[in-house]
Amino acid sequence: MPNKKENAQANLENLYRIFTIPEAPDSTLGRIDQAITDNAAGFLQEHVVALKRELEEIEGDFADSHIPEQPTFVSEYSKFVTDKLVAQSVHTASPGFVGHMTSAMPYFMLPLTRIMTALNQNLVKVETSKAFTPLERQVLAMLNRLIYNHDDDFYTRWIHDSQSALGAFCSGGTVANMTALWAARNKLCAPCSDFNGIAQEGYLNAMRHLDCTGLAVMVSRRGHYSLGKVVDLLGIGRDNLIKVDTDDNNRIDMRHLRNQCSRVQADGKRILALVGIAGTTETGNVDPLDEMADLSQELGCHFHVDAAWGGPTLFSDTHRWRLRGIERSDSVTIDGHKQLYAPMGVGMVLFKDPAALSAIEHHAAYILRHGSKDLGSHTLEGSRPGKAMLVHAGLSIIGRQGYELLIDQGIARAQNFADMIEAHEDFELITEPELNILTYRYNPAWLQKVIASADGDKVNEINALLNQIIRMIQKYQREAGKTFVSRTTLEHARYKGTSVTVFRVVLANPLTTEDILVSVLKEQCELAKDESLQELFDQLRCMVQAA
Amino acid sequence: MPNKKENAQANLENLYRIFTIPEAPDSTLGRIDQAITDNAAGFLQEHVVALKRELEEIEGDFADSHIPEQPTFVSEYSKFVTDKLVAQSVHTASPGFVGHMTSAMPYFMLPLTRIMTALNQNLVKVETSKAFTPLERQVLAMLNRLIYNHDDDFYTRWIHDSQSALGAFCSGGTVANMTALWAARNKLCAPCSDFNGIAQEGYLNAMRHLDCTGLAVMVSRRGHYSLGKVVDLLGIGRDNLIKVDTDDNNRIDMRHLRNQCSRVQADGKRILALVGIAGTTETGNVDPLDEMADLSQELGCHFHVDAAWGGPTLFSDTHRWRLRGIERSDSVTIDGHKQLYAPMGVGMVLFKDPAALSAIEHHAAYILRHGSKDLGSHTLEGSRPGKAMLVHAGLSIIGRQGYELLIDQGIARAQNFADMIEAHEDFELITEPELNILTYRYNPAWLQKVIASADGDKVNEINALLNQIIRMIQKYQREAGKTFVSRTTLEHARYKGTSVTVFRVVLANPLTTEDILVSVLKEQCELAKDESLQELFDQLRCMVQAA
Repeated sequence: MPNKKENAQANLENLYRIFTIPEAPDSTLGRIDQAITDNAAGFLQEHVVALKRELEEIEGDFADSHIPEQPTFVSEYSKFVTDKLVAQSVHTASPGFVGHMTSAMPYFMLPLTRIMTALNQNLVKVETSKAFTPLERQVLAMLNRLIYNHDDDFYTRWIHDSQSALGAFCSGGTVANMTALWAARNKLCAPCSDFNGIAQEGYLNAMRHLDCTGLAVMVSRRGHYSLGKVVDLLGIGRDNLIKVDTDDNNRIDMRHLRNQCSRVQADGKRILALVGIAGTTETGNVDPLDEMADLSQELGCHFHVDAAWGGPTLFSDTHRWRLRGIERSDSVTIDGHKQLYAPMGVGMVLFKDPAALSAIEHHAAYILRHGSKDLGSHTLEGSRPGKAMLVHAGLSIIGRQGYELLIDQGIARAQNFADMIEAHEDFELITEPELNILTYRYNPAWLQKVIASADGDKVNEINALLNQIIRMIQKYQREAGKTFVSRTTLEHARYKGTSVTVFRVVLANPLTTEDILVSVLKEQCELAKDESLQELFDQLRCMVQAA
Repeated sequence: MPNKKENAQANLENLYRIFTIPEAPDSTLGRIDQAITDNAAGFLQEHVVALKRELEEIEGDFADSHIPEQPTFVSEYSKFVTDKLVAQSVHTASPGFVGHMTSAMPYFMLPLTRIMTALNQNLVKVETSKAFTPLERQVLAMLNRLIYNHDDDFYTRWIHDSQSALGAFCSGGTVANMTALWAARNKLCAPCSDFNGIAQEGYLNAMRHLDCTGLAVMVSRRGHYSLGKVVDLLGIGRDNLIKVDTDDNNRIDMRHLRNQCSRVQADGKRILALVGIAGTTETGNVDPLDEMADLSQELGCHFHVDAAWGGPTLFSDTHRWRLRGIERSDSVTIDGHKQLYAPMGVGMVLFKDPAALSAIEHHAAYILRHGSKDLGSHTLEGSRPGKAMLVHAGLSIIGRQGYELLIDQGIARAQNFADMIEAHEDFELITEPELNILTYRYNPAWLQKVIASADGDKVNEINALLNQIIRMIQKYQREAGKTFVSRTTLEHARYKGTSVTVFRVVLANPLTTEDILVSVLKEQCELAKDESLQELFDQLRCMVQAA
């Protein structure tokens, strides 16, 4: 019988194996990995099946809160990965999964991700990232140029300058928006002769110094929910995130914006920033950025553009004009994991002024020393992986023209789908696609006729019932797992005073064909016939007959 | 000659190929990937060579700020990856790279990362993550149990409860610390009858409501620099991050802490939180958490523990006692990419109270609806990848006992290295390892004798010169690329009134052998003989003779 010491030695040797002996290609884990690598689409199609399995049931597989005491063999764990995780995940890359901002991914991202993981660089400092630091700065310069198009001298001067930054990488659009407004807040409340700055003295002293009763951030009602988190974190408060009405095309209403700015100022508040949106999350619309730039200039405030979704539209010679004015902004958010087709977890914020990020600069004795080129001195996050590599790969391999094609095709596909919806008698287009996002709802022909001539109260009652039906159709479609659209709730000019529940479709996956879009509508018509919905339809018919 | 339309069609087909045709295993990229997968250590050893190439020279490879117009073949791009990126990166996994918090990585993390990337789940909502959502909640429950060890009923009740969260995943320790103090701030300034809460009304009204002149966060001088960012962002201000003196073991001095708390309160400020450290970044020490818990209870403030580094010490039956009191904290930061051996970019914050994160809860119409199980309603970040899978794999495959071995070995290795340094006549141990981090400096025997009998001013002069020498040795060693230690600057009881530059060593890589540590010291002795340093040594000798 081995004694305790021998046992410990044996355990230690087993443990070292996982650090020293690669997973063999014919191991269970190696086989799953290879199968996904060889044919992700096929593998996922086969394995990610919609079992109509409720989340509550799946939770049963993840119910133990004890950390396993003994080690598990990798092969055994691999079985868990296949059966319980891969099989129960969502096939976000499926061409029929058009409900969220997901897409098929370029295959080269897979081996590159593994190379990146094996290198395991930490971009917080040069000592743990070396070439990845200039690489990241290069990618930021490229995106900065895409937006601001400064001249060559500008980029030669600033691209690798240790005292400044053309932008910052981060984990996603939320942190990007946060970084932009953090820098803007600290610049507005910068140190001067009798004030050490908000970074040092805090919010209370800053307001005293500015002699105002608060800061305000202006954005349209279609602004992303991350902005609520940002103003909460920054001490501005959600009450001071002023949600401005939109026009009938979900673009910020400039007259309302001006009125709101005046009102806020009359309250003794200081306007920190206007936030323009280039591609609203729900409807894909673009605010009148040029007019917003005028206004922010007039007000002397920061102008941030949340182009997390729509930024890559700038690649397109045909559609770039839609974002006109973005080049006059102070900062821009772009997500790498959206229309740059990188994997989840890549965000960026770009600044017009290479000195802008010095408002949030920080140092430490053991890293990020003054004068170093450590990227960590200008980022909200600390330790970060080398994801800039994946964006660099996309820009290089796909190229400007490749991205242009992807953008143009997406917008054309959305227009095409909008036409299909309008041509179909049982559907109603709610928001026209400006980029590649649209919303619509099921609204059978007979009901559309009734609505056209009904009075306001009646329309509201009908919409309330129809909203329930839409919610159920969306749920059934998601559960069936063949295709997927998301849903949201919008106010619409056609239906003042009530909000309508709509299907939301995002067409960024280049593999989504017209046939698939036809089948989405066909399936929805079928689902509308589901027995469980007939009571609601009966109520609708009664209501109509009573009218 | 093909016309424009035909050209466009051809381009489009080429573009679709990258989304539909996997990288063949015998493609250039496939080969690099396979080589790394088969033998990361060997591959990196061979390819990541220290060329003594200055960063400025490497920047030349990343100088173009134009986005390539035309697509590039993947094979061509792969050459760039090998020559310019892999070859110029830092071999952070090398057993001789003991200067930062990096390590060799368990091999199973590589295929799992690729599987995770191929699945490309978005954890912000169930619709784009399904089984990954309960998986993430399970991992949070496991870590929560490791720290707080609530009873089984507690975990059964809360693990999958949609209204609450046992913690949050995020990109790293900075966001984890931020989430903890954000939740604490919002709880302290919670809504009540005449105040809508700081989240809604902002910092200014919150201070009026609390009738105080500001908030304060207390941490020792060894606190991580991320806390400075956190108090800046949250509106608290860096002046109100009170850096408390430490004792001779780099642990917070409780008497000084109490004095500082009284001073802050006398200034009319409210103490938001005490932050204890379990594993200081520079020296690896652990604050007296139990005493801090007492004090925070007394003060009625939040008690946060930054255990980004030291948290996994809890796995060890031998060393767990060092963190005693952590179970009385309100929140704890643990990094997955540190001593849980996951790849870069995994942080977590755990809360004792499942309702704590409701202080930062947020919703949106199209996702994160009330009552949904969407994780995004309780996280600082929005879209996030399924990295919980990698932590889950570590906990399952390595197990509690495996992590215990890793922790125990690391601490033993550090003690062993400390003994080697003390036994070596030309080195001086500056901080004893409490966990697996220590600091020391080169200090030749003849000089040590002089310092022992010199007066304070003389010692300061000597230290100033020695600091320069240490900086150069560290630089030369880094450039030579065989082994790597980092450096920092510390105040030390032995040398009051001056700060000493030290080598900093982190011993978390299980593959770091005693031989490697011997070679680290040997190389430093050799480098001390470098011609360029002799002038400094001459100055030292003159100074000593003059005395």
